[in-house]
Amino acid sequence: MTSTAVRPYVGTRVSRVEDPRLLTGAGTYVDDVTRPGMMHVCFVRSPIARGRIVDIDLTDALALDGVTAIFTGHDLSPLVHEVRYSLDGIFAATHQWPPLALDEVRFVGDPVALVVARDRYVAEDAAELVVVEYDPLTPVVDYTTAPTSEHLVHAQHPGNNAGELAGRPAADLAPIFDGAAHVVSQTIYQQAYMPMPMETRGLIAEWSASSGEMQIWTSTQSPHETRLACARLLGIDEHRVRVVVRDTGGGFGQKVAPQREDMAVMLAATKLTASVKWIEDRQEHLMSAGMARQEHGEARMAFDEDGRILAAELMHVQNVGAYPITSPMTAASVVGMLFPGPYNVAAATFGLKLYYSNTVGRVAYRGPWQFESMAREVLLDTAARQLGIDPVELRRRNILSGSDMPVTSPNGMPYSDATPAETFEQALSILDYAAFRSEQEAARAEGRYIGVGTCTYLEPTAGAAPFHVTEGATIRIEPTGKVNVYVAGGSAGNSLETTVVQLTADALGVDIDDVHTIQGDTAVTPFGGGTGGSRSGSMTAGAINETAVVLRERILAIAAHRLGAPVDDIEFIRSRATVRGIPEVELSLAEIADIAYFKVDGLPAGVPAGLEASGRYRSPLPMIWANATHLCTCEVDTGTGAVKLLRYIVSDDCGPMINPSVVEGQIWGGTVQGIGGALYEESAYDESGNPVTTTFMDYLLPTATEVPVIELGHVETPSKGPGGHKGVGEGGAIGSSPAVVNAVADALAPLGVKVSRLPLSPSRIIDLIEAAGGGDK
Amino acid sequence: MTSTAVRPYVGTRVSRVEDPRLLTGAGTYVDDVTRPGMMHVCFVRSPIARGRIVDIDLTDALALDGVTAIFTGHDLSPLVHEVRYSLDGIFAATHQWPPLALDEVRFVGDPVALVVARDRYVAEDAAELVVVEYDPLTPVVDYTTAPTSEHLVHAQHPGNNAGELAGRPAADLAPIFDGAAHVVSQTIYQQAYMPMPMETRGLIAEWSASSGEMQIWTSTQSPHETRLACARLLGIDEHRVRVVVRDTGGGFGQKVAPQREDMAVMLAATKLTASVKWIEDRQEHLMSAGMARQEHGEARMAFDEDGRILAAELMHVQNVGAYPITSPMTAASVVGMLFPGPYNVAAATFGLKLYYSNTVGRVAYRGPWQFESMAREVLLDTAARQLGIDPVELRRRNILSGSDMPVTSPNGMPYSDATPAETFEQALSILDYAAFRSEQEAARAEGRYIGVGTCTYLEPTAGAAPFHVTEGATIRIEPTGKVNVYVAGGSAGNSLETTVVQLTADALGVDIDDVHTIQGDTAVTPFGGGTGGSRSGSMTAGAINETAVVLRERILAIAAHRLGAPVDDIEFIRSRATVRGIPEVELSLAEIADIAYFKVDGLPAGVPAGLEASGRYRSPLPMIWANATHLCTCEVDTGTGAVKLLRYIVSDDCGPMINPSVVEGQIWGGTVQGIGGALYEESAYDESGNPVTTTFMDYLLPTATEVPVIELGHVETPSKGPGGHKGVGEGGAIGSSPAVVNAVADALAPLGVKVSRLPLSPSRIIDLIEAAGGGDK
Repeated sequence: MTSTAVRPYVGTRVSRVEDPRLLTGAGTYVDDVTRPGMMHVCFVRSPIARGRIVDIDLTDALALDGVTAIFTGHDLSPLVHEVRYSLDGIFAATHQWPPLALDEVRFVGDPVALVVARDRYVAEDAAELVVVEYDPLTPVVDYTTAPTSEHLVHAQHPGNNAGELAGRPAADLAPIFDGAAHVVSQTIYQQAYMPMPMETRGLIAEWSASSGEMQIWTSTQSPHETRLACARLLGIDEHRVRVVVRDTGGGFGQKVAPQREDMAVMLAATKLTASVKWIEDRQEHLMSAGMARQEHGEARMAFDEDGRILAAELMHVQNVGAYPITSPMTAASVVGMLFPGPYNVAAATFGLKLYYSNTVGRVAYRGPWQFESMAREVLLDTAARQLGIDPVELRRRNILSGSDMPVTSPNGMPYSDATPAETFEQALSILDYAAFRSEQEAARAEGRYIGVGTCTYLEPTAGAAPFHVTEGATIRIEPTGKVNVYVAGGSAGNSLETTVVQLTADALGVDIDDVHTIQGDTAVTPFGGGTGGSRSGSMTAGAINETAVVLRERILAIAAHRLGAPVDDIEFIRSRATVRGIPEVELSLAEIADIAYFKVDGLPAGVPAGLEASGRYRSPLPMIWANATHLCTCEVDTGTGAVKLLRYIVSDDCGPMINPSVVEGQIWGGTVQGIGGALYEESAYDESGNPVTTTFMDYLLPTATEVPVIELGHVETPSKGPGGHKGVGEGGAIGSSPAVVNAVADALAPLGVKVSRLPLSPSRIIDLIEAAGGGDK
Repeated sequence: MTSTAVRPYVGTRVSRVEDPRLLTGAGTYVDDVTRPGMMHVCFVRSPIARGRIVDIDLTDALALDGVTAIFTGHDLSPLVHEVRYSLDGIFAATHQWPPLALDEVRFVGDPVALVVARDRYVAEDAAELVVVEYDPLTPVVDYTTAPTSEHLVHAQHPGNNAGELAGRPAADLAPIFDGAAHVVSQTIYQQAYMPMPMETRGLIAEWSASSGEMQIWTSTQSPHETRLACARLLGIDEHRVRVVVRDTGGGFGQKVAPQREDMAVMLAATKLTASVKWIEDRQEHLMSAGMARQEHGEARMAFDEDGRILAAELMHVQNVGAYPITSPMTAASVVGMLFPGPYNVAAATFGLKLYYSNTVGRVAYRGPWQFESMAREVLLDTAARQLGIDPVELRRRNILSGSDMPVTSPNGMPYSDATPAETFEQALSILDYAAFRSEQEAARAEGRYIGVGTCTYLEPTAGAAPFHVTEGATIRIEPTGKVNVYVAGGSAGNSLETTVVQLTADALGVDIDDVHTIQGDTAVTPFGGGTGGSRSGSMTAGAINETAVVLRERILAIAAHRLGAPVDDIEFIRSRATVRGIPEVELSLAEIADIAYFKVDGLPAGVPAGLEASGRYRSPLPMIWANATHLCTCEVDTGTGAVKLLRYIVSDDCGPMINPSVVEGQIWGGTVQGIGGALYEESAYDESGNPVTTTFMDYLLPTATEVPVIELGHVETPSKGPGGHKGVGEGGAIGSSPAVVNAVADALAPLGVKVSRLPLSPSRIIDLIEAAGGGDK
């Protein structure tokens, strides 16, 4: 770039460009799309957790007026060409799951047949008329006993083993543990809970037999991954599949890739003469859309006399359910790798075991490796109590600070540009930690149980492999000087349109009102990795910079030529070019574009016509590290077991913010999800594998009543990525549940309560208090 | 380009990629688009040719169930922000026509009110209930008496003058004419006839009040011109307007720019809460969509003793109707400039006068300057008869050949790379001219009247100013190696998708089945000028070459790096890279793309990630000259006046053909239109200005029965444009009608018939024979 760009927009609270349509009800979610002659889908799902399909009788269902077709697993599986996603590891097709159950059902909600009818009412009625005869089998409901069960979820996976991984041999660390002044252990079980987007899953598939083209409207975080998956599934060319996503009402990892129902609808569409729509209802969603977080671990740390961490070890076990849709191994391996966290730990290892069960499949969920923070931070509070050191003091003796960077963790993670100690101290200072401890003492004297908990984490974001390490943009400055910016998108509420408009306006030097962005249509935009791995902000900034620089240079050259000044003297700000020192002579971007497209004789030599460019950013970094500290205080009613959050503070370092309002929204949203996981949400099954939380009366989400104001502080350390930005999408959901758990445990510590199972529902808290021998009563 | 590309596709008869959808009825024309809640439009039109609007009573119409709104001229005109197209000259907004008539109606069919209703049936019923009281005024029906009429079509244009232009002073040429051995004059009147696309006009406008965005589906030759026009009309940013065109069933110049009805629907849509569709019916089309060709001229040429042309002069008068929608002056001026045509003429001049009348407005029509050929070629046949020289021999003494190029015409036209003499001789040889003359003699002896006529023309094509002189393309090689090519499009049946796929496959070196093109959506493609001025083939070839070269270089670099060979040794053909001499080791484009997007560590230094590029071609030439000779033989039944075409031959030089099948289709289609103009088609009015040809029972189109096989010959002289291609879209419609007229005149010459008015309908031929004093009877 010849002249230094003024950057008036990045870093400011630009109003969301998405909001006018969303706040006036003019958003376009999948269910808002209607196509001529469109048909509707309802799935027939298994009512039992495990069983052999003896017979499927479609006679009555097919006889119902308005029913177009019914497909079973044996109809669709032969149509499958290939199940594969483009990302090695994360989306590896280790599991070639059938779109619909073939000879065995494996969880309650397993799709068995797909009914197509003229409307949803008929489709639902017909689904009830499908008679499936099952031969019930004993289900494997509890993943913790799955390895020793005589029953197998998948016959080809003995011991229900879904994968194993280990760090360095535990024996290596034995001398450290044996010789340490203190060894602290902590076991914690996390329950299954779910990404809970406001918009459930949904997909419209429209097959054109004459052109061999498939068009899809769907709710996804990655339109291009969906396109690739569909092209491979059907065995057709990638460019014959068009995936369109206008608005997506939340994804949180559940929508990174098409699931079995999506595949079934795509396949069925190729046998139909008009488009077909499937909209998941909430009960289906709660049964079948995928759970996360269900795992447990035995964490151990060795400390020296002064409380300095000598070694850390995590033995970790996960439930992957019946049909995990993305490879859980990748995310799970990160749990072990990150377990030492933002602390100075000399040696570490981990072990990992994954088991199948006859429950809904595991999916990705905002910070899928979140258990590393849970296991570590709960253990540190336990250690503090065991060693008789204040938990803040214990952390201070071990935590890494900005001046320690770069540093490599004992599991080989190359931390850089991160500030754990700084966010930790900022959060404590916002709270006034010492004052809280005094208040706590006073409260206890009154028989009130208040507590404080923290969680500090480091998170790899933004282009970290194995996520997509490139992102592309096309920018077209149109003939009137208005700008269209094309990026892949896949925003599921993360304000990517606003972000792109801000970044582009600054990268080009144009007025923000001149910029419009087009996203979410694979036929229109360059390939992009979608939303995932907290990558959107940083990768998009890279893509836009890469593309805009070409155009800015051309704008300056045309302006210099027209204004008769050297290029170095041209200032181009808010769509207006002037010569430095002569502000009265100016040339608008509209005039520059008019030259570039129509009055091309006015172009300087060597400058091509038009103002269009396509570029692709390639992340040069292995990963960009974001970090934050969550700090929370609570009061526990030992009579009812109810937890009330008093204050909630997050201090984060996501580098320079593109838009503080968007960053705040991301942190707040993720934090609320973590609070839900710590206290309320649970995707539960009875002993027979029947789901017992299939409505919002049973599956409890936190509401505005339960969540306090979330106070935010920021430490700003630029990364070496574009603009210094770091990812901020997932962190809120990582740091919050451990902080809440620690606060509850701290509140109840005088009663001798030890927390080892989540969620901390009122009944569980009462049980814990009773198990510890008392309480108020 | 590092290695020389093999070009397996350009020049071959690749099957049209448009055909599978079009031939199976799966094309998407405007009327195939349905939007949720869409409303329908019917226009109330003037039943009189000229009158004052005294009152419009909407009471009964608005009371009809299902009527949403009715707009009059005074409702819509205040909403007009600006009427302007981007092309100076051609689309100059010299005429700020109101969308609907304001206080005066100016032709039968003039739109007076726009009714919006829940369906077309209700809209039509309501339109009949609108009561308009008119005060009739005397119309100006005949443009030839318009300059002396006491009545004015537009009060601000005295003498009904719509423009005048003149070449060098006629006095300059007087000495030549005065001193010439022979001076030949010819007056010829051409009737009004119309572009007649299979798909009538139509437009859906969908306004989003929440986003301030307008989406339009329309039948147009230039989606981007429509977008610009709409943005300016509504006073909104260009990028807030999206124009989508999938299939357009013909345009022929009538659809180069939005007309008044289109403007009215766009404006009305901003006051409605759902989309609104207008589909023109055929009667509306025949009354209101625009006529062309109505003009006459007095042509004179001076010859020396040997029949060599010494000077040429054309005095030319045009009817522009009430509301010409594009500036007729530009096309009309070309008539004068081109009048000397492909002959060696020492001196020339022209005069031009345009007049308004109370008939439908003039629009562009395939070769809008076609009258230059009509006036010249009919004169040359008359001259041949007058001088007693065979018309072929007369032409041979004057015609320019390839070896004369480059040469500048007496009116300053810089002819180059053209071969008039060569196509002329080729056409004669295909016919066997001498044999025909013998046959004619024999026929005459039997009382049969057969004749032969020719027309040779030169035509400026492909990037000739003032048409758009740039064209852009974006190419994305997707991660699986499949290619999407984005160009603006605006194909109205001219196979632009096929052309683009062929050009791209060759420019990149990929398999043609790997290439897909996306066109006709202004939100998706780069700005492009659309179809017009026979520019699509050549300009698109330029845009694709400009863009593909970047990607081909990158492909070769990646392949060289991966295969461990110098770039110069890489051969990349049909999507496969090999090392020269080692054909057994190959790398597919899919593997190369996989590296470019996903395995980026495999990229050589300096090669960016991705395989995407945007480029824009700028025509370096003032114009690219195409030329052709049409030759036709016919028999005239002097009893019925019927003309039967016997043989029809076209020899053209459009440079190297991109696809011979497409070229043939273009020539055939245009030729049939010219035959229609010479013999059948007429948009006629009675003395009161009532149109009398408002159905296909009255407006006679040539059908397969009337048209003989059209035999084609080609002379191939590359232009200096991209690939050497020249424009071929318009020529068929330019050369055909003069050839037919000359053939009829030649057949009837023994009877002393002189042709001066078209079309040569049976009744006119009978009249001519009778006026000449005889015939068979």
